[in-house]
Amino acid sequence: MFVSVIGGSNCSEEETRLAEEVGRELAKRGVILICGGLEGVMEAACRGAASQGGTTIGILPGNDRHEANAYVKIPIVTGMGYARNAIVAKSAQAVIAIGGSYGTLSEIAYARQNDIPVIGLDTWSISRLGVEDKSIITANSPAEAVEKALALAKR
Amino acid sequence: MFVSVIGGSNCSEEETRLAEEVGRELAKRGVILICGGLEGVMEAACRGAASQGGTTIGILPGNDRHEANAYVKIPIVTGMGYARNAIVAKSAQAVIAIGGSYGTLSEIAYARQNDIPVIGLDTWSISRLGVEDKSIITANSPAEAVEKALALAKR
Amino acid sequence: MFVSVIGGSNCSEEETRLAEEVGRELAKRGVILICGGLEGVMEAACRGAASQGGTTIGILPGNDRHEANAYVKIPIVTGMGYARNAIVAKSAQAVIAIGGSYGTLSEIAYARQNDIPVIGLDTWSISRLGVEDKSIITANSPAEAVEKALALAKR
Amino acid sequence: MFVSVIGGSNCSEEETRLAEEVGRELAKRGVILICGGLEGVMEAACRGAASQGGTTIGILPGNDRHEANAYVKIPIVTGMGYARNAIVAKSAQAVIAIGGSYGTLSEIAYARQNDIPVIGLDTWSISRLGVEDKSIITANSPAEAVEKALALAKR
Repeated sequence: MFVSVIGGSNCSEEETRLAEEVGRELAKRGVILICGGLEGVMEAACRGAASQGGTTIGILPGNDRHEANAYVKIPIVTGMGYARNAIVAKSAQAVIAIGGSYGTLSEIAYARQNDIPVIGLDTWSISRLGVEDKSIITANSPAEAVEKALALAKR
Repeated sequence: MFVSVIGGSNCSEEETRLAEEVGRELAKRGVILICGGLEGVMEAACRGAASQGGTTIGILPGNDRHEANAYVKIPIVTGMGYARNAIVAKSAQAVIAIGGSYGTLSEIAYARQNDIPVIGLDTWSISRLGVEDKSIITANSPAEAVEKALALAKR
Repeated sequence: MFVSVIGGSNCSEEETRLAEEVGRELAKRGVILICGGLEGVMEAACRGAASQGGTTIGILPGNDRHEANAYVKIPIVTGMGYARNAIVAKSAQAVIAIGGSYGTLSEIAYARQNDIPVIGLDTWSISRLGVEDKSIITANSPAEAVEKALALAKR
Repeated sequence: MFVSVIGGSNCSEEETRLAEEVGRELAKRGVILICGGLEGVMEAACRGAASQGGTTIGILPGNDRHEANAYVKIPIVTGMGYARNAIVAKSAQAVIAIGGSYGTLSEIAYARQNDIPVIGLDTWSISRLGVEDKSIITANSPAEAVEKALALAKR
């Protein structure tokens, strides 16, 4: 099972804590973690996963494998800048979004375009014509986010 | 001046009408229209622009220039699928969003990530932690959308 | 008709002269010139085309429209780095290669993969298992390159 | 260590044999194999690696993880068509090319552009202005290709 954890390269302490716990919970269940490979939420999630011996994949924007955070075991070097966000989303069977800015929003959009479930922890909500799109599924804790991601994962 | 018009390849009659008028208004002002090159909102906007002798650019997802709608004068063949959405957004100095689904949302996200203003006609609204992101600027008519796009365009 | 001119961002004086003349010859025939939008061969070709009032499109690697050379009239901002080479190749109906390094070779490869003819002026030659691939068509002058490009252009 | 094996999705029996042995030799040395994830040389290399318990990554062109061959353990879903060739090249510390057509040539070009060594088994040779580019390093056997790849790998 492959789950992407998305969120900002700048993030709050609380987001860091959430991301690290999400990473741990994924790794405990044998799930492979995918992310954008950089700092912030991405690094915290990888650190959590690595602490449990999990596999971590970083889909990097630049041309240098060394831009990956220290907890990425498999760096994928795209050289495509933030167009790589599409790959972070599409390679997952479920996505967990934590906080995040516009890059995270683009990943949410790509995931939903590909019918990949998105679980949100303190992240974006989206509405069209005043009606909320309920397809970003809210979770109240990292463990709940992981449980929902695994239950809904695209096969 | 370059303005992208984004929206669904499936769209309502009202969205078609709005897009066509946006295209006309842009062309009347000598603005070059960029879009994703396909049907729906994209085609209607190109048709409107072409009716006024405007230049239309279609950033195509596939490998075949002939997938462009009949009103695209300059087809750009990316072969990159919906990763081309990043290009549609980034090549514009302002973006006008009409309706649209998740692909449109990804383009809005890429535009905002690059500080390109987004003007919305009956499109997505986005919130973080319950606070609406006001950076999608609402317009009530095609002419108003075009005026706001030109006033705010990134230099 | 759309023709891409490809070659290095660093180039010799002779390559500069060839590229500028190719640009002029294309524009005289009303052909729209596509290139990677930067310096060297790209800039020289655009300068030649602009001197004849031609239309020039620059498919840029970065996120900033201002990285285009001064003769690009239509900058396409990809933000995808050298993955944009695929777009430079695929958007053309014929490609003219002048000198160039590995980036140019990648564009030749993408053009040939898409059955787009490649005309070479002092550029790469390629062989498989010791047999030269004759599909890079040699020209001995800019005018000949342009004539061959137009004669062979993919419809 | 990460090594990409590149070559055609259609390939000869001899190329299949070479690719499978390259995959085995990589896996025996604990190297992670990257490829384009599809049939032909890619599948044979993955099959060889999998027979030795190796890790295999497939950088897929389409939007469906199920397009990966049966021996890919980690599918990366790009949805970017053959623009994904840049990623196959750049994610490697060394590339082994076996036979191949224009797609393979584009990967060789991207690898060389990024100073990643390319080892060739019965593949392309390239020349500029009549002078062969010796940077595609010839190997006479799969084991020799793997040894050279590891010796020269970019750090």
